[in-house]
Amino acid sequence: MKRVVLLCVAVAGASAWADEGMWTLDAFPKDKVEREYGFRPDDRWLEHVRLSSARLAGGCSGSFVSSSGLVLTNHHCAHQCIEQLSTARHDLVRTGFQARTLAEERRCPDVEVHQLVEITDVTQRMNGATAGLEGEQFFQAQRAEIARIEKECQTTPLLRCEVVTLYHGGLYDLYRYRRFQDVRLVFAPELSIAFFGGDPDNFMFPRYDLDVSFLRVYQDGEPVRMDHWFRWSREGPRDGDLTFVSGHPGGTDRQLTVAELEYQRDVALPERLLELAELRGILTEFQRRGPEQRRISSATLFYVENAYKALRGRLQALLDRKFFAAKVAAEAALKAQLAKEPELARAYLPAFDAIATAEARLERIHEPLRFIEQGAGFSGHLFEYARMLVRGAEERKKPNGQRFREFRESALPAVTQRLFSPAPVHDELEILRLGHSLAKLREHLGPDDPFVKKVLGRESPHELAAALVKGTSLKSVAVRKKLWVGGLAAIEASADPMIALARRIDPDGRAIRKKYEDEIESVLRKSDELVAKARFAVAGTSPYPDATFTLRLSYGRVKGFEQNGRFVEPFTTIAGAFDRATGRDPFALLPSWIRAKPRLDLQTPLDFCTDNDIVGGNSGSPVFDAEARIVGVAFDGNIFSLGGDYGFDEAVNRAIAVDSAAIVEALEKIYGAERIVKELDGTPAR
Amino acid sequence: MKRVVLLCVAVAGASAWADEGMWTLDAFPKDKVEREYGFRPDDRWLEHVRLSSARLAGGCSGSFVSSSGLVLTNHHCAHQCIEQLSTARHDLVRTGFQARTLAEERRCPDVEVHQLVEITDVTQRMNGATAGLEGEQFFQAQRAEIARIEKECQTTPLLRCEVVTLYHGGLYDLYRYRRFQDVRLVFAPELSIAFFGGDPDNFMFPRYDLDVSFLRVYQDGEPVRMDHWFRWSREGPRDGDLTFVSGHPGGTDRQLTVAELEYQRDVALPERLLELAELRGILTEFQRRGPEQRRISSATLFYVENAYKALRGRLQALLDRKFFAAKVAAEAALKAQLAKEPELARAYLPAFDAIATAEARLERIHEPLRFIEQGAGFSGHLFEYARMLVRGAEERKKPNGQRFREFRESALPAVTQRLFSPAPVHDELEILRLGHSLAKLREHLGPDDPFVKKVLGRESPHELAAALVKGTSLKSVAVRKKLWVGGLAAIEASADPMIALARRIDPDGRAIRKKYEDEIESVLRKSDELVAKARFAVAGTSPYPDATFTLRLSYGRVKGFEQNGRFVEPFTTIAGAFDRATGRDPFALLPSWIRAKPRLDLQTPLDFCTDNDIVGGNSGSPVFDAEARIVGVAFDGNIFSLGGDYGFDEAVNRAIAVDSAAIVEALEKIYGAERIVKELDGTPAR
Repeated sequence: MKRVVLLCVAVAGASAWADEGMWTLDAFPKDKVEREYGFRPDDRWLEHVRLSSARLAGGCSGSFVSSSGLVLTNHHCAHQCIEQLSTARHDLVRTGFQARTLAEERRCPDVEVHQLVEITDVTQRMNGATAGLEGEQFFQAQRAEIARIEKECQTTPLLRCEVVTLYHGGLYDLYRYRRFQDVRLVFAPELSIAFFGGDPDNFMFPRYDLDVSFLRVYQDGEPVRMDHWFRWSREGPRDGDLTFVSGHPGGTDRQLTVAELEYQRDVALPERLLELAELRGILTEFQRRGPEQRRISSATLFYVENAYKALRGRLQALLDRKFFAAKVAAEAALKAQLAKEPELARAYLPAFDAIATAEARLERIHEPLRFIEQGAGFSGHLFEYARMLVRGAEERKKPNGQRFREFRESALPAVTQRLFSPAPVHDELEILRLGHSLAKLREHLGPDDPFVKKVLGRESPHELAAALVKGTSLKSVAVRKKLWVGGLAAIEASADPMIALARRIDPDGRAIRKKYEDEIESVLRKSDELVAKARFAVAGTSPYPDATFTLRLSYGRVKGFEQNGRFVEPFTTIAGAFDRATGRDPFALLPSWIRAKPRLDLQTPLDFCTDNDIVGGNSGSPVFDAEARIVGVAFDGNIFSLGGDYGFDEAVNRAIAVDSAAIVEALEKIYGAERIVKELDGTPAR
Repeated sequence: MKRVVLLCVAVAGASAWADEGMWTLDAFPKDKVEREYGFRPDDRWLEHVRLSSARLAGGCSGSFVSSSGLVLTNHHCAHQCIEQLSTARHDLVRTGFQARTLAEERRCPDVEVHQLVEITDVTQRMNGATAGLEGEQFFQAQRAEIARIEKECQTTPLLRCEVVTLYHGGLYDLYRYRRFQDVRLVFAPELSIAFFGGDPDNFMFPRYDLDVSFLRVYQDGEPVRMDHWFRWSREGPRDGDLTFVSGHPGGTDRQLTVAELEYQRDVALPERLLELAELRGILTEFQRRGPEQRRISSATLFYVENAYKALRGRLQALLDRKFFAAKVAAEAALKAQLAKEPELARAYLPAFDAIATAEARLERIHEPLRFIEQGAGFSGHLFEYARMLVRGAEERKKPNGQRFREFRESALPAVTQRLFSPAPVHDELEILRLGHSLAKLREHLGPDDPFVKKVLGRESPHELAAALVKGTSLKSVAVRKKLWVGGLAAIEASADPMIALARRIDPDGRAIRKKYEDEIESVLRKSDELVAKARFAVAGTSPYPDATFTLRLSYGRVKGFEQNGRFVEPFTTIAGAFDRATGRDPFALLPSWIRAKPRLDLQTPLDFCTDNDIVGGNSGSPVFDAEARIVGVAFDGNIFSLGGDYGFDEAVNRAIAVDSAAIVEALEKIYGAERIVKELDGTPAR
């Protein structure tokens, strides 16, 4: 399963070949596609695709598939919502969910959907604002200008405006989105078929998952009327068919410098993986406490296992000595080119050293940075709320341009959506997660560290977590609203223990963050921008920029691949799922499927794979044909796709999708969901 | 805490300087010590030290400290025994243990103690046996010759004979040990003071641990009369004093080739660490099920956390790019030297490539090897018993020279000691461990792997584990004895489900092991031997060999070190422990200490550090002065010692020991253990 896991900032430029590439919608290689596939996507077609595509703010993609705001995405993109709408007695993750009428559709507490309505180039304005500046001043000027541009653009909370840094500073675009905050759950199958094969099959193909869910965007209590949406193909694709995927790849690192890659390989990835492995153990065993514990922690465990497997694949890619040597050689070649021309050498060569120096600095402070400021020491929803409230109160007093990015005016609707979420908070899981992260805080900074002593005093991590979780009133949305509205005065007057903790450690977090921004992030931003420009200067116009969780379009075809010397066919069938079922989790099929078996066309294709270039964040992306008809929904990549963060190997890297034919077959014959099928066929919702 | 964690085989030769070095007792650098410290250890002194030193077969060291077979070692070296002697009502790990009379001393189920009585050089004989052979034949001939030498030597189960490969084949020595299998627990303090500071303080200094226990060796029901034992210094050492440590460093990798180091850095260590991290999470959460679960899993969790921290340190050392570059440069220099002389080049240069090829092969099969054959897929005591029984039955039918090394005649007493151990087996923990390892087996080999299908069938890992653990009768020592004595016929007739599983997968394990031995291990043995000889040829006689869990003597002095720009003094005091106590685990002092506080001399040194060169396996080693008087017992190294596997940095690498003065202070004033103190002072046991 692909989900956004952002480890570090991305850099730009690559020499794309064949079907490689995550193209922005305003710079799509129409000629290339026409040459290779005999189909030319024109501007109207691209506009239609853009407006029919959707972003899920939590880190997924989706598509509009009816005139009534119906959204197709993955089950795993809605998993958190489905879990939040469940109770001990009605576990929708286990049983699935289906709204038989509009009135039965249920609002997701935390889901926000975006539709990209406009892209504007603001490079000149950004360059003007930072011209001649370095370090902290560069960073401040850039921050202020971004805040200004976004605020000017975002005239209503119904819009979301983002300045997007492409090619890591080679290009700045303003992305204007329509924002939907009332998003409702329409349909979800049972987890057991959505995630059939579980973690063992994750990132594998052949595959047998119905990883699908339907949501609907509402405004003022009514389904939103759409002007653009993808039509549906009941047939799905055939082997070799041209396929497009539009979606939001979360981030790639294909153009990092060697120093940045070394930091990932030797520091960031090993550390994060070890953390995830331990947390996975904790949650796996927590699930055995009982069925309710299992229920309330399943989305969290899924997230952890998915991230673990994805990052393990990334580390594996970087540990491939041949692959890494190629990266080293490419950088050496670029530097040699630059060195030939004194002007280029002067302008760009120092940036490589500056990056290496900044990475070395980061290596020295990454532990306090992550544990004190970036959340590793304080897990769970309740502390997150407390920090949002404490920080938000102080930041909102400042001029927009001087705030932390997450509290810019343009970002506030997302903050309040999260903060006022009615999603349930489970004490037992909160204590587990907070206690564990506090223990890790002590482990990594050491029991004698003054910050650790300040936080723990004489208490054990677990005791402290229990006291905080039991003592706080932040579980109540009303309390959170009151504190948010009350601002700094309310925060300062609060006796809530979680607020008190967030308040007490806020200066420490700010201090280490300032150090990071002034001495590392600002250097990296400036230098990465120079490296991007150096690549432009040497290689001419560059192909697609590294992914940035913004809309990208990729093209490719349905295509098998070789693994362990065997050719893997690009399709599986519904029959295959029945063959693979053992009756035991995670290979258990539920009665709904077993009962429906005689009615099903077992030869219906279930999942298929293509060589579209996608990564985490593309989950839920529509897969469509030249006529912009949905033929599938992407939900994963094969094991070779995990190196896709650093490079694309067309021979074996594959995207995996649920076939549109299987979706209809299941909706009709297993779930009796004619209401949805009719809507996919063109009838407005009712 | 230092414990043997053997990851891979060691290679030889290094240019030692200053106090670096783990010297064999028959090649101790007497001149060097005399030059530097003005004290010359003569042969009598060395013999006395050798015979007063002890090895604990489980992976620790110790020393004889009275004429009545009293053994000093660490608490953590006896932790498993203390746990095994405990029950839910009498948790000796928590309360500590003290035998007030000889009759109260309690036999440890699994502890075996060795005393090194003789070293004989058998290099010529070994070289003769393998002359001109390669690959599988080299390996078989070597195996047969080792079995022959050991069997000739080992005339009684009261002896243990081992052919030791030093300098990875530069030298072969026969080590003859006196073996003690009746070992009893005499004294152990509470875990909370033995391991004060717990995992957070592990591998740290300053430190405040009384990591001490006393055992006693028995024969025919009587304490063994010793001719050699260390006398006791009530004063302990002073800053700058010359200190010796004799013990059994488990294994170092200071002379691995670059290809071998890369395999450790990129494959073995990351994989093992990720496994340990997840298992740590599982066990940490398992401990929260209740006090009994906590009790039965505490030694296992300790082992996992200790190994995790130690291996994390090793990986960190290899990820140090400067350090690794130095290794690469050293190997290049050696190869350049060899290349200068055609004869040397022909003889030795191919060995480097052969090693690289073997490591690449290992990378391809290491997962099936570890999961099918080396235990990673089948954790827990019960499966271990089943495999010993199934394998043992078949192996014992073969001629001694053709058996797996662990079933050679010379190894059988250790096998039966383990197999007939009356240590309790806890179903709940067995199910947890076996189920988890089966899940990992499936994860690493994949659910479609034929071996995985053969093991799991349609069952889930946890279900299968529960069925096996509940269904087996191997929990009974009598049943195990009967199956062992009954041999192959009994094994074939057995309907025990755990035996059936071990029987069913035995051919798979043998097949992958054969592949490993024929194509990888044999190549590495031969080639590592050549690399060792190449080093001898180029650098002349080499210093100490890499560690091999055989007796070594190191010299050094009591000495502080710099950490984070601050000088750390080499002593802590009992007062420091009271200052550090928070009342919360792992910083909680028990009532025994708090009550005794007024009686204690708080300025008594508690722990100290020295620059002796020790690693895992040295735990429990005596620290003694030139008069061979105990001044402390080594139990750990500081954080910089963790790189000691690959090299010794005298500036910061420190061994950590409990001060002999603190031991007496605690025995007398806290535990009222005059019986032991008198014995340390020279009175025979009663």
